[in-house]
Amino acid sequence: MDHRPIGVFDSGLGGLTAVRRLACVLPNENIIYFGDTGRVPYGTRSRDTIIQYSTQDVNFLRTFDLKAIVIACGTVSAIALDTLTHPQSLPIFGVVEPTARRAAQTPRNGRIGIIATQATIRTGAYEQVIRRCRPEAKLFAKPCPLFVPLVENGRTQPGDIVIETVAAEYLEELKAQGVDTLILGCTHYPLLTDVIRNYMGPEVTLLDSGAEVADHLADYLRHHDLAAPADQTGCYRWYVSDSTESFHDLASIFLGREVTEPVEQIAIQNY
Amino acid sequence: MDHRPIGVFDSGLGGLTAVRRLACVLPNENIIYFGDTGRVPYGTRSRDTIIQYSTQDVNFLRTFDLKAIVIACGTVSAIALDTLTHPQSLPIFGVVEPTARRAAQTPRNGRIGIIATQATIRTGAYEQVIRRCRPEAKLFAKPCPLFVPLVENGRTQPGDIVIETVAAEYLEELKAQGVDTLILGCTHYPLLTDVIRNYMGPEVTLLDSGAEVADHLADYLRHHDLAAPADQTGCYRWYVSDSTESFHDLASIFLGREVTEPVEQIAIQNY
Repeated sequence: MDHRPIGVFDSGLGGLTAVRRLACVLPNENIIYFGDTGRVPYGTRSRDTIIQYSTQDVNFLRTFDLKAIVIACGTVSAIALDTLTHPQSLPIFGVVEPTARRAAQTPRNGRIGIIATQATIRTGAYEQVIRRCRPEAKLFAKPCPLFVPLVENGRTQPGDIVIETVAAEYLEELKAQGVDTLILGCTHYPLLTDVIRNYMGPEVTLLDSGAEVADHLADYLRHHDLAAPADQTGCYRWYVSDSTESFHDLASIFLGREVTEPVEQIAIQNY
Repeated sequence: MDHRPIGVFDSGLGGLTAVRRLACVLPNENIIYFGDTGRVPYGTRSRDTIIQYSTQDVNFLRTFDLKAIVIACGTVSAIALDTLTHPQSLPIFGVVEPTARRAAQTPRNGRIGIIATQATIRTGAYEQVIRRCRPEAKLFAKPCPLFVPLVENGRTQPGDIVIETVAAEYLEELKAQGVDTLILGCTHYPLLTDVIRNYMGPEVTLLDSGAEVADHLADYLRHHDLAAPADQTGCYRWYVSDSTESFHDLASIFLGREVTEPVEQIAIQNY
């Protein structure tokens, strides 16, 4: 049993879709969330810049006495997990490994699609894990650079010709290739579940990378006797690097509930 | 006569549309350009963050011996020009003042539209200048948050249903209000000239804010005898804050010519 909180970070607020699942599967855990809203997005930036920014994100979270850190960002998970992980230090979980393993284990025909930011797709990180677990899998990866700004502008509803046109362009080849399992490799994408499901068809299994890392963390805490006491109600502390002004409204969209806890701005470039 | 270069900066590469015009009207001038590609976009961020970032941008440019600085960014021009300008220091030109003055002087019916980023529209900066020059003008402002990511993803062509749908949504009310002069208040927007003109109609005058500040600077240099010698061929030096990898391809789109000069990455957070 371990009372210490879990640290979670993302380039912005997309990672709150992972926190949403954490709140479901680990309702007793305290969570400290940092969103780098002053430098979002990461998915269009270079490897070195993503490593620099995410190192500062982790340095900030390490100022708390945590039991684990979750990288609720597909881009950072794909690019910087190894750099951020120090032996004999607290465990850090990215979204790639648990999501790719789940995809490999899905009892379907092994035609797996991966959609994510440009930076994530460039790394081939999902493919490496899947091939290790299921060498004969057929993999189809596609960067979807407009999905993040479209989600952030609220273009998530079926029937919106803008998101439907863009989604059809990005997903056309994956559908033509008969993909039956599709990894949503960016924590913004779960807000597009309806649009993506409508296009791909109901028989395609969609894997939400934020939810997968939350489930994986829950297993880990149970196996290592690190879960919070069952009578503890999880508390949440929010931190961002830009103004806190519009945080509550935006965060509610990703978190799927009203956000009432206070939020604090920090100077991430100093970490 | 003054041999010193002109410094130009933008949150990213949109400001190169201003450099394109500078190269036309001031072909003898040397130009040092900085694009903050590691922290772009600015237009969705808070006032304080925009002031912090643009202060560092100007501090970097001040390490050169310049005769003037051009803020080729609508957002910074609207929010931070006063903060960045020090008396007895080198002159700094933003896009708002010259573009708003031109709009006020345009001999039309005084129904003026302004499109720009959310941060720019929030300030009301264009409106203040226009009202000073033409108090009876009818002004209609509209933030267009998806235009920057759509331009950066190459969605600029007439016939593209995505950009045409988004443009129609943003411009619908301005058109209904009978706007006859439209300020493109963000240096990304000139790449959407055809799409915007098709929707608004050929009778509406479009004002390119990057081109307006370039023309204004040309006048200023002539009047103050600060122009470069007529036998000097302008040289260009490029700096960015993220990787230089994709700079040449992207820059060519905004600049309208192949970019062959070298580009250097700098650590803008240290300025």
